[in-house]
Amino acid sequence: METYALGIDLGGTSIKGALVEREQGVVAQSTRPTEGDQGPDHVLDRIATIVRELLNTHQGPDPVGLGMGAPGAVDMARTTVSYPSNLADWGVVDVRTALSARTGIDHVVVENDANIAGLGSAHYGAGMAHDSFIMVTLGTGVGGAIIHNNKVFRGSTGGAGEIGHMSIDYEGPLDNSGISGAIEAYLGQQFLSEHARMRLRHQPESVVHDLTGSDLSTLTPRTLHKAATQGDEAATHILAWAGRRLGYALSSAVSLLDIRVVVVGGGVSNAGRFLLDPAREALRSQVFPAFQEGLRIEREQRGNEVGVLGAAHLAFSTTPTA
Amino acid sequence: METYALGIDLGGTSIKGALVEREQGVVAQSTRPTEGDQGPDHVLDRIATIVRELLNTHQGPDPVGLGMGAPGAVDMARTTVSYPSNLADWGVVDVRTALSARTGIDHVVVENDANIAGLGSAHYGAGMAHDSFIMVTLGTGVGGAIIHNNKVFRGSTGGAGEIGHMSIDYEGPLDNSGISGAIEAYLGQQFLSEHARMRLRHQPESVVHDLTGSDLSTLTPRTLHKAATQGDEAATHILAWAGRRLGYALSSAVSLLDIRVVVVGGGVSNAGRFLLDPAREALRSQVFPAFQEGLRIEREQRGNEVGVLGAAHLAFSTTPTA
Repeated sequence: METYALGIDLGGTSIKGALVEREQGVVAQSTRPTEGDQGPDHVLDRIATIVRELLNTHQGPDPVGLGMGAPGAVDMARTTVSYPSNLADWGVVDVRTALSARTGIDHVVVENDANIAGLGSAHYGAGMAHDSFIMVTLGTGVGGAIIHNNKVFRGSTGGAGEIGHMSIDYEGPLDNSGISGAIEAYLGQQFLSEHARMRLRHQPESVVHDLTGSDLSTLTPRTLHKAATQGDEAATHILAWAGRRLGYALSSAVSLLDIRVVVVGGGVSNAGRFLLDPAREALRSQVFPAFQEGLRIEREQRGNEVGVLGAAHLAFSTTPTA
Repeated sequence: METYALGIDLGGTSIKGALVEREQGVVAQSTRPTEGDQGPDHVLDRIATIVRELLNTHQGPDPVGLGMGAPGAVDMARTTVSYPSNLADWGVVDVRTALSARTGIDHVVVENDANIAGLGSAHYGAGMAHDSFIMVTLGTGVGGAIIHNNKVFRGSTGGAGEIGHMSIDYEGPLDNSGISGAIEAYLGQQFLSEHARMRLRHQPESVVHDLTGSDLSTLTPRTLHKAATQGDEAATHILAWAGRRLGYALSSAVSLLDIRVVVVGGGVSNAGRFLLDPAREALRSQVFPAFQEGLRIEREQRGNEVGVLGAAHLAFSTTPTA
């Protein structure tokens, strides 16, 4: 029998929604700008609009529930979202109650967006091949999740997996949280772009200057990937520099968790082997030697779709009657 | 009703054994040198001798089983001990079968020594007050365990918790496993002692020179603690230097696990506040800010006894009929 759920991926820029059939995956999609500057009520209204839109086109049985991934902290009961950094005027919001009231859906469950990406990968993506893995999401920030025996390891309060805030150098550069040498201070999109700009100022021969129309302020990690693909040495070097640092952070995570598979997703992961081969080498060189066997870094090929898929999976897996 | 188990703590130097009553704790003890250079059969014989000795004095009901903590890797079924670094000619040994045959005890279960210390703390020590905590054992090496909801988090193959091999500086000094900036390269007993010697050579005013009879080769972390207690500035400085590095490693562990309580045991932890206050400060400065609440480092006051207690607990908690 076909079983449906709604999956929502709430981001700082856009809200992605999907109707997901348990076996088939995404059957309908809808995306809208978040307009997070207009406060939580507005954002919740927009989510409800997406839900209505998805349900209007739907012919099959009613969805068993709605799962949502959100930035910020999610409580242990997976009900509230607290202080998401990119959403204005958002203190502690009881998202479950608010969305149930707006959509008429009884079963609403919310989870941190990085954990949702991990769940999506575990059940619909690269993680399907592994019972346990570390999920890293390289986007605006660096997110992480620990998937252990196909479930999210949540720690004491539900916040586990902050790989982006693990440090590889206690005297290194500061990330946005003031942590020295945190991996986000190297691989967060703004940090990586700024590092690249500083380097490239002294490398006029790089093709990046052409790709950015001689305006380095428009440089993004995507530009670096494009240049590296064209054989550009400077861009290749920068991506390798970042990849090694990712590998160093992962080595500490693997040594602590004895989980030897890493799945990397998020926009910056599109740099593929330019980033991940150096990461693999650094991971191998710095991990506890007894943990070398089975060590691997894989790229999540489903891209951002793991967000809505993981959110829907959360609804499937927590529905009492499903 | 009184319930008994045998707890064995197999170390590179000595084998500690105890008869443990579930509620009362240790009721009888016996310790012998390991003589690990004579191979596994000899070591297993010595363990059996300790067991006989403990049982000879015992009047109550038969123990429900025997638990043992051992260095090296333990398999997922908690049956074998592989390649413990301080025990000669020891490949992969089926300890369960060997000890059952030697002692006549059916229920034998083995676990990594750091995990055993964590279990001992969780059920008989500082960890009793916490459902989840990170256990760090500062001894010859730096061991670790993750206790989550009163159980050991074992990872994919049973090896989780290698905190000693987490790195705080990807360009830092090498530990014995060749990992740059691993915390063991600062706080392992030999590393810390050597660092102190190098510093103290240039600090003739330090009381450490008196305490070692002007022979720095006899210096141990214990000497540093003694000197610090007497107000010695050089020794205090060295312990603070080490404590900060411990705090840096713990900040990454806490950010990854969202487990905010750390219990520190092992001989080097006797340095107490000289080591742990700087560790607390460094942890607080480098941890993910949302995880500040409830953050704490405690000292395990039961000392090495947590080993035999944790080993006995393992036997209690895994006995089918208990």
